[in-house]
Amino acid sequence: MEETQVLALFGKQLQIARLTKGWSQEKLAFEASLDRTYVSSVERGRRNISIINIYKLSKALNVTPSSLLANIGSNDE
Amino acid sequence: MEETQVLALFGKQLQIARLTKGWSQEKLAFEASLDRTYVSSVERGRRNISIINIYKLSKALNVTPSSLLANIGSNDE
Repeated sequence: MEETQVLALFGKQLQIARLTKGWSQEKLAFEASLDRTYVSSVERGRRNISIINIYKLSKALNVTPSSLLANIGSNDE
Repeated sequence: MEETQVLALFGKQLQIARLTKGWSQEKLAFEASLDRTYVSSVERGRRNISIINIYKLSKALNVTPSSLLANIGSNDE
């Protein structure tokens, strides 16, 4: 799996978790104490997000950090 | 949960996954194309690791990225 694909898969999973709550990017950014443009770029797979920011987003969404990576496999399949 | 605790929990889980394979930090670093001192500092909870490096480590260990975050909860409990 290409690294760009890892970022894209995370962004997609984050977007799904956000939309599941019916939240805008602005709402998620506010709840996670992050910038709206940052959340937008993460969802588009443009940022190599850190574990602390993964944690902040998961905490705001009341999901586990692990669940936000659940769609990323361990290998090239 | 404090952010330092998030890093410590990840580091511990990484160490467990590494030792499960019977690998040294040097071996894991080599397999993941990372520096040995970097792996050491991640295991000690000193680095705010990015999702790309989480992916590299998980791929080397043949575990899912998600599994390396499985011990980190979503809230302050």
